[in-house]
Amino acid sequence: MERRFERNLEDLKTALAKMGSVAEESLGVALKALLSGDQVLAQRVFEMEEKINRLEIEIDTAIIDLLALNQPVAGDLRFIIATQKINNDLERIGDHAVNIAESVLTLQTLPGVSIPPEIHQMVEIARTMLKQALDSFILLDTSLARTVLRTDDQIDDLNRLMAQQVITQVKNNVLTIEGGLELIRISRNLERIADLSTNIAEDVIFETEARVVKHHAERNDTN
Amino acid sequence: MERRFERNLEDLKTALAKMGSVAEESLGVALKALLSGDQVLAQRVFEMEEKINRLEIEIDTAIIDLLALNQPVAGDLRFIIATQKINNDLERIGDHAVNIAESVLTLQTLPGVSIPPEIHQMVEIARTMLKQALDSFILLDTSLARTVLRTDDQIDDLNRLMAQQVITQVKNNVLTIEGGLELIRISRNLERIADLSTNIAEDVIFETEARVVKHHAERNDTN
Repeated sequence: MERRFERNLEDLKTALAKMGSVAEESLGVALKALLSGDQVLAQRVFEMEEKINRLEIEIDTAIIDLLALNQPVAGDLRFIIATQKINNDLERIGDHAVNIAESVLTLQTLPGVSIPPEIHQMVEIARTMLKQALDSFILLDTSLARTVLRTDDQIDDLNRLMAQQVITQVKNNVLTIEGGLELIRISRNLERIADLSTNIAEDVIFETEARVVKHHAERNDTN
Repeated sequence: MERRFERNLEDLKTALAKMGSVAEESLGVALKALLSGDQVLAQRVFEMEEKINRLEIEIDTAIIDLLALNQPVAGDLRFIIATQKINNDLERIGDHAVNIAESVLTLQTLPGVSIPPEIHQMVEIARTMLKQALDSFILLDTSLARTVLRTDDQIDDLNRLMAQQVITQVKNNVLTIEGGLELIRISRNLERIADLSTNIAEDVIFETEARVVKHHAERNDTN
């Protein structure tokens, strides 16, 4: 029984790692579609969403079985709870990748909108944050998890900057309004992906140190 | 032991009901601030957020203790898992109430922006959806939970309509851009609150019927 439980925990970690890599791939494809304007890539994101949704339900079901058939305590229980939350966050990251892919298709109907440098920067930061958050989960590396927490402010600033720039641009030329709103939408989705990566990092810290760093309690101390 | 466990489950339900009523109150205050422009009310939302964050962590901790000290199965386990997810959704609804309160303060700096009828409608729908979702949890009323699922499309449509109207308005008068972006932000926050109320309704159905209705599986059948 004990050995089977340990194997089940290993399987759960493997399943979440897979969910993580599918979410990461989906985001990667969406971002590549965004920077290249490639509609075929955007379509692939919609297909990947179904896989992510299926995986989410599979992992959720496995977690309930695991809790029902065993009596996990302490670290094991925190691992299971963290896995459940991260699973949910990854599914939401998949949703934001879909939103970005939808924006790619909308931008096709708005010729002349180019992706500004701020979005390029946000793309890099969001991608790195998700990768670091997932690595911190696999390696139980709380130092890496804390790196993710510290990066979140950068993307918030860029998101605000984007809105300001769109306002300036629209005042110069009102016909840029549709494109501007779409850029704000993309910027906001990137900001949310960074936020969800932060949630994942917080869950890794909770799992490893039994310490709650939500609601920026710790970040306010260190910044 | 058995009796204590049942009492703990009751306590958990009471705690979540309290969390629900604080989140509902916070949203109510934010919406009242929005419709009246009252900045003092907006400030109250910021204070209530701290309470919501504290309650969320308390409930999360209680859930981990409950899982560690007992071996809940079947309905009890589903109740605990649903409670955990609803707790998280309510905290996020609190965040959106804060965003709306922030928009109230921003609107003060943009004289001449009036709240359009679509936002009034969205306010009513979002408030009703949250109330119905919470009632469905308390009463275990899956029929009411399904009412919430069916309402979600209405608010999505209104959200899209708002963006269209802002585009038209800005094209008529470019100086309305800041106010327009703020109205879009408010509209999006209301749409997210409706979405989170939908999540709560889905969790109530899962808890009661052991049936997963996420990712619109059931909704596509019935609409």
